[in-house]
Amino acid sequence: MKIEVLKNISSANDAIAAQNRNKLDEQGVTAVNIMASPGAGKTSFILQTIDHLKGKLKTSVIEGDIASKIDADKIDEKGIPVVQINTGGNCSLEAHMIGSSLDKLPLKDTEILFIENVGNLICPASQALGEHIKVVIASTPEGDDKPSKYPLMFAESDAVIINKIDLAPHVDFDTAGFKKVVQGLNPDVVIFEVSSKTGDGIEKWCHWLTAKAKKS
Amino acid sequence: MKIEVLKNISSANDAIAAQNRNKLDEQGVTAVNIMASPGAGKTSFILQTIDHLKGKLKTSVIEGDIASKIDADKIDEKGIPVVQINTGGNCSLEAHMIGSSLDKLPLKDTEILFIENVGNLICPASQALGEHIKVVIASTPEGDDKPSKYPLMFAESDAVIINKIDLAPHVDFDTAGFKKVVQGLNPDVVIFEVSSKTGDGIEKWCHWLTAKAKKS
Repeated sequence: MKIEVLKNISSANDAIAAQNRNKLDEQGVTAVNIMASPGAGKTSFILQTIDHLKGKLKTSVIEGDIASKIDADKIDEKGIPVVQINTGGNCSLEAHMIGSSLDKLPLKDTEILFIENVGNLICPASQALGEHIKVVIASTPEGDDKPSKYPLMFAESDAVIINKIDLAPHVDFDTAGFKKVVQGLNPDVVIFEVSSKTGDGIEKWCHWLTAKAKKS
Repeated sequence: MKIEVLKNISSANDAIAAQNRNKLDEQGVTAVNIMASPGAGKTSFILQTIDHLKGKLKTSVIEGDIASKIDADKIDEKGIPVVQINTGGNCSLEAHMIGSSLDKLPLKDTEILFIENVGNLICPASQALGEHIKVVIASTPEGDDKPSKYPLMFAESDAVIINKIDLAPHVDFDTAGFKKVVQGLNPDVVIFEVSSKTGDGIEKWCHWLTAKAKKS
């Protein structure tokens, strides 16, 4: 008799991520996993992007935080469908949390789903959610050494956003050096320089995102 | 026969942390666990503090990072004894890593040991290292909502540092609101406003640290 070798249970997260992906694909939704340090500006970046896509693409948001619903409130004020996940102590969103959230969002009326991960440059890099696009945001006040210190997240992302470029004159940030390290880790990555405060650079990012969403 | 109930293995970290604490106490070393987001300015803050304590207290440093030895190099340039720990993927330093590092530092010539944890507002909050003092740094460009989003770390710390106050005029940071939330989580906490770039506020912090170290 042929012995079935079942998948290792360590891939339970991946199995659920694959289910999420199927569900998203069935509904024609492109999911974007937004990762960054605490305070790098994930929510402001999502808000700017949503504003820019208004009238062009329909969006929804999943907010991930250890605690609070501060970010979800900001999205809700814009009239955008949003679910807040509080992970308790978990340092990353996980696929099963996304699975539960998808049932609570109007997927038929969504073209792009932004998933704001927990503020953390480590844990989210190794947790598949079922997303189509991975984005990591690094902000200029954090310094230019983040890709060297947290290489996996920068190596795995499809796009890297350098945020808070409006603060560049007030902080030491070597943009060329930063890009060089990122491209060494991830030769296919696309890098955008933006300010989620002033809106600078958001148009170029939205152009890339829209093209990418149509392909996925 | 009496059945021995052994300690749960989940407290292995705590057991090693207690050993570390004994070793530190035997040598008269006060250990300070410095925690923060990536890019909040942990290393710059430690460098400013070391400069200020020069000739008054003898210091050593343990640097924790996922990868690289960028931070240890900066400490080494000052002629301060330093050990770099690379955790691989681990999102916090753990007690056994500190145990191994203590053997490599001149503890007899150390009065204050700074332990720079991995850049993360979540994992380090629940890993005892054997330290005497816990400090969390929040920087103004990260925004004032970090205590609401990462309450455990702010609740557990002895001191909270608001860093990068030189950038306050360029960012939205409600200092009074921030302090109110922190004091709600942790009524005994001491809060310092500093700029590790200009040195503002470092003297006051060093005064508190020196008094605290003498008591421990």
